[in-house]
Amino acid sequence: MKGSGSTKPLSGMRDFLPADILRRRHVIRIVEQVYESYGFLPIETPAIENLSTLLGKYGDEGEGLLYRVLHRRDKLSRALESDSVTQKDLSSEGLRYDLTVPLARVVAGHRGRIPRFFKRYQIQPVWRADRPGKGRFREFFQCDLDITGTGTVLADVEVLHAASGVLQKLGFTDFRIRLNHRELLTSLIRRAGIPLELEQSALVALDKLDKIGEQGVLDELGKRGVSAETASRLLDLAGKKVNAQGAGVQIDGEELDESGTAALERIREILEAASTGPAADHLEVDLTLARGLGYYTGAIFEVAVPDLAGSLGGGGRYDGLIGIFGGESVPAVGFSLGLERLLVVMEERGMFPELSTGPDVLVCGFPDVPHSLLLKVAMSLRQEYARVELFPEPGKKLGQQIRYADELGAREVVIVGMDEISRGVLQVKDLSTGEQREWTWDPDGSAS
Amino acid sequence: MKGSGSTKPLSGMRDFLPADILRRRHVIRIVEQVYESYGFLPIETPAIENLSTLLGKYGDEGEGLLYRVLHRRDKLSRALESDSVTQKDLSSEGLRYDLTVPLARVVAGHRGRIPRFFKRYQIQPVWRADRPGKGRFREFFQCDLDITGTGTVLADVEVLHAASGVLQKLGFTDFRIRLNHRELLTSLIRRAGIPLELEQSALVALDKLDKIGEQGVLDELGKRGVSAETASRLLDLAGKKVNAQGAGVQIDGEELDESGTAALERIREILEAASTGPAADHLEVDLTLARGLGYYTGAIFEVAVPDLAGSLGGGGRYDGLIGIFGGESVPAVGFSLGLERLLVVMEERGMFPELSTGPDVLVCGFPDVPHSLLLKVAMSLRQEYARVELFPEPGKKLGQQIRYADELGAREVVIVGMDEISRGVLQVKDLSTGEQREWTWDPDGSAS
Repeated sequence: MKGSGSTKPLSGMRDFLPADILRRRHVIRIVEQVYESYGFLPIETPAIENLSTLLGKYGDEGEGLLYRVLHRRDKLSRALESDSVTQKDLSSEGLRYDLTVPLARVVAGHRGRIPRFFKRYQIQPVWRADRPGKGRFREFFQCDLDITGTGTVLADVEVLHAASGVLQKLGFTDFRIRLNHRELLTSLIRRAGIPLELEQSALVALDKLDKIGEQGVLDELGKRGVSAETASRLLDLAGKKVNAQGAGVQIDGEELDESGTAALERIREILEAASTGPAADHLEVDLTLARGLGYYTGAIFEVAVPDLAGSLGGGGRYDGLIGIFGGESVPAVGFSLGLERLLVVMEERGMFPELSTGPDVLVCGFPDVPHSLLLKVAMSLRQEYARVELFPEPGKKLGQQIRYADELGAREVVIVGMDEISRGVLQVKDLSTGEQREWTWDPDGSAS
Repeated sequence: MKGSGSTKPLSGMRDFLPADILRRRHVIRIVEQVYESYGFLPIETPAIENLSTLLGKYGDEGEGLLYRVLHRRDKLSRALESDSVTQKDLSSEGLRYDLTVPLARVVAGHRGRIPRFFKRYQIQPVWRADRPGKGRFREFFQCDLDITGTGTVLADVEVLHAASGVLQKLGFTDFRIRLNHRELLTSLIRRAGIPLELEQSALVALDKLDKIGEQGVLDELGKRGVSAETASRLLDLAGKKVNAQGAGVQIDGEELDESGTAALERIREILEAASTGPAADHLEVDLTLARGLGYYTGAIFEVAVPDLAGSLGGGGRYDGLIGIFGGESVPAVGFSLGLERLLVVMEERGMFPELSTGPDVLVCGFPDVPHSLLLKVAMSLRQEYARVELFPEPGKKLGQQIRYADELGAREVVIVGMDEISRGVLQVKDLSTGEQREWTWDPDGSAS
């Protein structure tokens, strides 16, 4: 076998050791439990998708971050025969970039096998060749929930409540959910005087407001051909306060076109329906919220906490995405929580319960005890204890075995000696109190 | 957004709908529980690894099945500038092919952060561009458990017991575990007169005996330059019966060299130590077992059931693998169960308990009930029930809502009407018995 270079994982990716996994599982179990309590059901999809499935959904910036899988064998040889080889010739498959596009493919493809209102959740990794940063990785887990098959306000609100329910159950109290609507944004963009063909660019620029500030957005809009005056006007409009008191939502002093007015009414309905429940005290309308992804068509959401740059997650309504996979158009709304973002904040705030990797019992033995007897003792203890580990080098001195139990964080050691076995007992030592006692042990039954 | 072609997953890969996931989870939970009962702890590693980590470990056939990730941006452009581009120029990363090589990298890299005897399990997908078949996919999950840091018989046996314990807990009674030893095989290969440089080829050929039969193995050995007579002699030697009665293991009428004799003694020790416990009645020595992978050095195992071609899993000792990642050499032994193989047999044999995807309750409402009230009822029911779904189009006729509850497989429907609400009650209907009753409902508390 060849010698190998680095023992490190690739940049932006991580190995999770047992203590990491326990924390990840703590969060994932709560996500699953809350999502399921709302009637969401789990699905999973393959890591690799056809590029034709992935391309044309995320916008140019997203596509630049796709991991592409190299052609194999004959297909690669044929591609390399050409005089000018390009990226397009070398790959027709890529790693999934999010869980929403695969869901859209599944819903379009499995019609008849899924309920009309498909409430699904999906907790799987996605891959983006992005620059790594705090809580930002190249392989990371999304915890998605979506409702397909209906365009109702109720669906929008259920998604908001379920995501908020997870945050509350994890122990978050200070999150805020920014709420906006793509049609309202489009209406403001038009009103600012930005031409139709630059709408998407304006959304992408506005989406970066948090990261690059007002001047950054103005510069970016300028680069894309928007005049300084128009760009300022857009920022001014998006900066307007929205009054969401009681039943009336209005934008201070601005007349909106028809679709903008309808979008504002939708926001009012969402706020009204969500007036009690987990999301209730956390929602606020923010006209600067844009969400970078190309597929949103209605309400959009993003959830954040003060001590993390960027968001804990986000989502929105995407009524056009499923239809482009063929067949009829299917409305849909969803929310995605970023597992790593949750973990990084919970870690810093000390929000995890105590999670021990140590076994309940380490079975140690004197050197003269046959292997089969050690194994038998361990097996019978497994009927009483969840986690029973056997010291794997029984020839070693007992003191060394017990020191190892301490290192592991074992609660107790059971010491197997031939004298005790002949008396029908096992020695047990509690490692936190040091207390020692004897258990009766029946080789044909279990310890007690 | 662009229109997209197929809604099908890629060849050899699958979408898992909720009913599939419930069955997969049923198996995974049992694997986790049994592995943990032996003191194994979970780790996870990234899907993508450096090719330098993956190459040179699996043998040529394995490497041909690797998924390689295409270079991005500048690195790709530079590669394409060259006159004769090859696969090697286009990629330096690939998808993991198994979970053993990543474990070896982790153990070599995280020394000091993991216990000396590292008992880890790992349940994650791996990718191989193999020809799809029954229970054989291009993305599939392995359930691995390994003990690193010790070369003892006890470690070999614990791994065999833990894997067997899983199979028993899943309901398998008729599995058999074939046991062999790489050094014993090498000894037989030498004794047959196969030259040193063809040893690995002979192993690979012998490994296919199950699939291609004796004549197939003879042909393959011939193609690799082994004479017909020598090849026959190898098959003859490997076909010898091993007597494993009581304490004595011997190969009928054959004299072995020193390492072969030591390997045979090791097999005897394994059988003796494993004489009670989950693996006990399932082990049998089989000198034709070879295991294709390049990294095994000691005992090798493979588990099978009569109604599935190929194995449910396998493993063995690989004392040289971790050391090649630098640092000291670390002995290790492991076993890998194939999740999809288990599932396909369990499905055919009807070994799953009843697993329902339907919610406990579907909340339905008359059209005049405000959204916020429907949401409130659903929320309070979630304090009593694990899975409460809300019909998401409250404008629809009640009969249609209840029909949908039937389609979903809901156990009960709760019907929210303004009259009942004003009387402080909810209507409840049991969908299996048709029985209807009233619950008192306090809008500030919960249903009872």
